[in-house]
Amino acid sequence: MNGRALPRLALTAGEPAGIGPELLVRLAASSLAANFVAVTDKGLLERAAARCGTTIQLLDDDGSDSQHRAPGSLRVRHVPLAVAEQPGQPDPRNAQHVLATLAEAADGCMQDRYAAVVTAPLQKSSINDAGIAFSGHTEFFAMRSHAEVVMMLASPELRVALATTHLPLSAVPAAIQADSLERTLRIVHDELRDKFGLTQPRIAVLGLNPHAGENGHMGREEIDTIIPVLEQLRQQGMSLLGPLPADTAFVPAQRQHYDAVLAMYHDQALPVLKSEAFDRTVNLTLGLPFIRTSVDHGTALDLAGSGKADPSSLMAAARMALDLVARRHLSAAQR
Amino acid sequence: MNGRALPRLALTAGEPAGIGPELLVRLAASSLAANFVAVTDKGLLERAAARCGTTIQLLDDDGSDSQHRAPGSLRVRHVPLAVAEQPGQPDPRNAQHVLATLAEAADGCMQDRYAAVVTAPLQKSSINDAGIAFSGHTEFFAMRSHAEVVMMLASPELRVALATTHLPLSAVPAAIQADSLERTLRIVHDELRDKFGLTQPRIAVLGLNPHAGENGHMGREEIDTIIPVLEQLRQQGMSLLGPLPADTAFVPAQRQHYDAVLAMYHDQALPVLKSEAFDRTVNLTLGLPFIRTSVDHGTALDLAGSGKADPSSLMAAARMALDLVARRHLSAAQR
Repeated sequence: MNGRALPRLALTAGEPAGIGPELLVRLAASSLAANFVAVTDKGLLERAAARCGTTIQLLDDDGSDSQHRAPGSLRVRHVPLAVAEQPGQPDPRNAQHVLATLAEAADGCMQDRYAAVVTAPLQKSSINDAGIAFSGHTEFFAMRSHAEVVMMLASPELRVALATTHLPLSAVPAAIQADSLERTLRIVHDELRDKFGLTQPRIAVLGLNPHAGENGHMGREEIDTIIPVLEQLRQQGMSLLGPLPADTAFVPAQRQHYDAVLAMYHDQALPVLKSEAFDRTVNLTLGLPFIRTSVDHGTALDLAGSGKADPSSLMAAARMALDLVARRHLSAAQR
Repeated sequence: MNGRALPRLALTAGEPAGIGPELLVRLAASSLAANFVAVTDKGLLERAAARCGTTIQLLDDDGSDSQHRAPGSLRVRHVPLAVAEQPGQPDPRNAQHVLATLAEAADGCMQDRYAAVVTAPLQKSSINDAGIAFSGHTEFFAMRSHAEVVMMLASPELRVALATTHLPLSAVPAAIQADSLERTLRIVHDELRDKFGLTQPRIAVLGLNPHAGENGHMGREEIDTIIPVLEQLRQQGMSLLGPLPADTAFVPAQRQHYDAVLAMYHDQALPVLKSEAFDRTVNLTLGLPFIRTSVDHGTALDLAGSGKADPSSLMAAARMALDLVARRHLSAAQR
């Protein structure tokens, strides 16, 4: 890799009053081989560094490539705050600032100015308090790029995509429909192939009901909806396992048979992933025309300003983004 | 423990055509310090031993105590088969035999002839095919002893009780009711204290919805049902955590805060337990007037007769029963 430019990774700080700015400072202090570009307010980063008791070398981003980055240095694409942050107290007046950082990161990825975007956590309620309809990073990026997306959580050992995400449990069964399930599986399949470089991805699909319904004895959604979709997609060449009972789908002997799991709902699979790899779990958005990874935790308002937030998850997200960028280069080279 | 009689553990073989009889032979071959009494057909055990390529010394149980057991020896309380077994092919004519073994084991426990019962898997459908309404070991023992019970799955590292068990997912939300949740929590609390010897058991209760409903944004069952029950029981002195979001309830930092988890439904917690401790997971029935543990797998009809079934789960169930018997003696001695 000598002589090769480092990937330009856009970093968004999320909620200015949360731990995001401090996490960016911590990440910049690492020796990770990336040309980080923080898309946020320069003064915010300076104050975050002071709160972390560290120094940081901020450089205005000129869009150029670089083969080296000194630990502790960070490029900045300055997006000004409306008002100075008060750690722990989100201010709706900064909502437009937060959205502007996301828009710049997404547009920059689509214009190839950034190789990927890694996002720190934002405070949804503070954006809503500003009178803006907003339901999260994932939906924002999907709208900005006119894409249909699927949420995936991944650790180095396990990848889990979700057929439904943040729904009340009582709304889940009705949300499992053949057409959306089919689109979800196509996105997961295509992204495992295109972004993860798996020639023939193997996806294990969980049943909706305990024991995957046990032949209709405990719910019929497997028979009526899930199995027909799997059969149709198998005929089109997809390598699909299941529907599998969730309770035994994650045992070690099963894991060798698949590259990713599609769970029907949030609490069916995320407890497994987080219990075994809490600080190494990364949130990815599949289906976007660019690579986006994220921390898998919140703004930790109680910790913000203390300089004590743990950057493990942001580091894991940055590493996964770099890994995906490298695989994309590899796939492109092989074509 | 010198001079102390070994605990008399009743073992039921479950489905005669399944792997149960072979598992009992394997367990008897171990050096586990228990006075095992197989409640089943003597000839069935002899044939199972032959299929395992091993010899077994079968002794008619005379109800006596013993301080030693030679590995490979097994007492038998003979309950005759109706017809000889065909491994892999359950015969409904043996349904009454299976039920008779369960009745003898339960009655023997209640009459203190056995210290506990450990059950091998049975084939529910074969009993139903005999025209008998039967929904499983747990329900059978509950009816036989007029008890209300709670299913618990436990590994050496994690105990999970279930508020609902084998329901279609769509039926779960309506099944979470204040009165049944309260009774369930009382049973779990009392059994952790009385059978597990925990003076002040700490129970972590999961929410029903993702993120435990996030203050009503994703479902209201936490606010309307779960939280009021927890508050009431806390006032009565119970040590209850939650409702916790399921996805982060099992991370290492959380586990130190509780002795057991109450999950709202099957697939919310069993995937975690089984993925980390598949062959060490034991099924326990809380609320019975006796100790009952069980394997946590099925009859494996495809393996039956081959002598190849893995006895790990039955061994784990026997060990947990012995552990609970020892704690009961300890508690009794302290009173």
